[in-house]
Amino acid sequence: MKIDGKPYRTIWPGTDGVSVSVIDQTRLPFAFEVRRLATLAEAAEAIRVMVVRGAPLIGVTAAYGLALAMREDASNDGIDRAVVTLAATRPTAINLRWALDRVSANLRQVQAPERFAHAFAEAGRIAEEDVASCHAIGSHGARLLADRAKALGRPINVLTHCNAGWLATVDWGTALAPIYVAHNAGVPLHVFVDETRPRNQGAALTAFELNAHGVPHTVIADNAGGHLMQHGGVDVCIVGSDRTTASGDVCNKIGTYLKALAAHDNGVPFYAALPFSTIDWTLSDGVAEIPIEERDGREVSHLTGRLADGGFATVEVVSPGSPVANPAFDVTPARLVTGIITERGVAEPSAEGLLALYPERRKAA
Amino acid sequence: MKIDGKPYRTIWPGTDGVSVSVIDQTRLPFAFEVRRLATLAEAAEAIRVMVVRGAPLIGVTAAYGLALAMREDASNDGIDRAVVTLAATRPTAINLRWALDRVSANLRQVQAPERFAHAFAEAGRIAEEDVASCHAIGSHGARLLADRAKALGRPINVLTHCNAGWLATVDWGTALAPIYVAHNAGVPLHVFVDETRPRNQGAALTAFELNAHGVPHTVIADNAGGHLMQHGGVDVCIVGSDRTTASGDVCNKIGTYLKALAAHDNGVPFYAALPFSTIDWTLSDGVAEIPIEERDGREVSHLTGRLADGGFATVEVVSPGSPVANPAFDVTPARLVTGIITERGVAEPSAEGLLALYPERRKAA
Repeated sequence: MKIDGKPYRTIWPGTDGVSVSVIDQTRLPFAFEVRRLATLAEAAEAIRVMVVRGAPLIGVTAAYGLALAMREDASNDGIDRAVVTLAATRPTAINLRWALDRVSANLRQVQAPERFAHAFAEAGRIAEEDVASCHAIGSHGARLLADRAKALGRPINVLTHCNAGWLATVDWGTALAPIYVAHNAGVPLHVFVDETRPRNQGAALTAFELNAHGVPHTVIADNAGGHLMQHGGVDVCIVGSDRTTASGDVCNKIGTYLKALAAHDNGVPFYAALPFSTIDWTLSDGVAEIPIEERDGREVSHLTGRLADGGFATVEVVSPGSPVANPAFDVTPARLVTGIITERGVAEPSAEGLLALYPERRKAA
Repeated sequence: MKIDGKPYRTIWPGTDGVSVSVIDQTRLPFAFEVRRLATLAEAAEAIRVMVVRGAPLIGVTAAYGLALAMREDASNDGIDRAVVTLAATRPTAINLRWALDRVSANLRQVQAPERFAHAFAEAGRIAEEDVASCHAIGSHGARLLADRAKALGRPINVLTHCNAGWLATVDWGTALAPIYVAHNAGVPLHVFVDETRPRNQGAALTAFELNAHGVPHTVIADNAGGHLMQHGGVDVCIVGSDRTTASGDVCNKIGTYLKALAAHDNGVPFYAALPFSTIDWTLSDGVAEIPIEERDGREVSHLTGRLADGGFATVEVVSPGSPVANPAFDVTPARLVTGIITERGVAEPSAEGLLALYPERRKAA
């Protein structure tokens, strides 16, 4: 996507052929800085301190990190050490593990001097596949948005929660991909961005993305979406998904379920946009079966932002001495979901609907 | 209610007989300070800069302010000037206007030298009536909580939104009154406190109140309540109301509607606790008829809190250049409300239900 008119991805190979560059997401939304990663240590550190974040982007960065490690030590031990180092940076990120497995799988069959080039190319292929998958999600979803705008004969209002945008992937994003594809195609639209407490990914990252690419949008408190829907202010909701059951339940950032309830109560279509890799075919009841991460209460009680003088500060906003709870995700049952947008098309939110898009899973079942 | 074991009200007459004292709510939750008001100017300033806030407390403070003005100028012109000065402090506060009308009504029939004592006594009566009304709400609501705790045979979890506590009234509060009365009577309970973005009245004031009085509680992001309800973590919701229709629709702080939807979806009883003065008998469709205040977007984009060194700072948290919308209230339709708790009892959320509690309104209709 574009930043001030110039196309960017979140990660790209350096012209020197021996490094990658990434957007430093710890500096967003207040500063745009690019960071060069040329060693295993730099790649691991970038993942650990969240210079890069978002499951697909973490996976691609780890893949490049393994490649960079081959310039330092291309032995079998070197492969093992690099995988251990990179896997430890974000222990719960499934995508990271998957990307490391994929790159390391055939690396031992390659002669040591060629291992860097081999791994670097494989990391590039993972990146290209992610871009293609996200763009396909965008194309399928954009058709829904275009149809809605045509039916209403006016610009449409889309509400989204958290950041499932291009900053979390290599390009396009998941929930935001339909918005970018539609916007680029001239479909008139405006996006309501939930600030997404407690980590404010909506206010910080989604707003930054949309602003940088030139998509009309407005940031709102998470509390405001229901009121907007009651008054016809929202024509469609699109969210991402961290984990999707075979039955179409969607586990996404905390608060998504509340927006789905409001959409249902007001007849507003509610879509989840996600790559097949988030579908867990072993699960059928998301509320009962998906464990929800409880994160540090300090994410609720403290906020970091920019001071008037341009510096940064962390302030405490909860009454001292009061305990805080911080569940990070919730599950939206399939009954509240209008459709699931994947790289293959739009599925009914049900086991049958998902199997119709992924018939190879029917044989496996 | 108590602060560190000592009973307080939000406003009380000074022992000198010529002043009132108030808790400085601009210093909460990080500091507890009492401020003495001895002049019209001090009372007006306290309302204007929100040293006192909450409709009932603003009304009582204005009533005392009018009394204090009589020590400075007890002429008819002095009455007029004091009313104008006080009414201008918070132009949209209906309760303020009502309290000034009540105190000033008979003041002109009183001899000038007795006007201070007369007005001071009337202000005191308004305060006592507010305490009695809030306590009655608390008693009726506490019965519901006690019944629920008895039926479940364990401590119950109550969820509340914003601050409808004793800090917004003279004592007890509205939504929090049932919690205080039940807690004082030994009903085992724990309160989930929505932080209530964008102004964080839950995290700052409700949490402070409950902590100071010793009521077990946990602060959560507004996004978390639906997830908690899906997993049986909430047994009952109680919220306040800024305006209530004759049909039982409840207009309260933005985000209330989302919690009512989640309560309905999970079979959790959802109550609104309010004094009769918030019922607007001329309205029947809250969503269509109640205008919603749009406040400064800076409330969303900036936050003020305490720094690690004890100082205070305001930080910007929304991506620069992104527009912000900030609707301050929403309407929860009566169909999502289990019952309306007033000083007279618990009403069905319907025109018939409210008229059964206020039969004198039936004759008026």
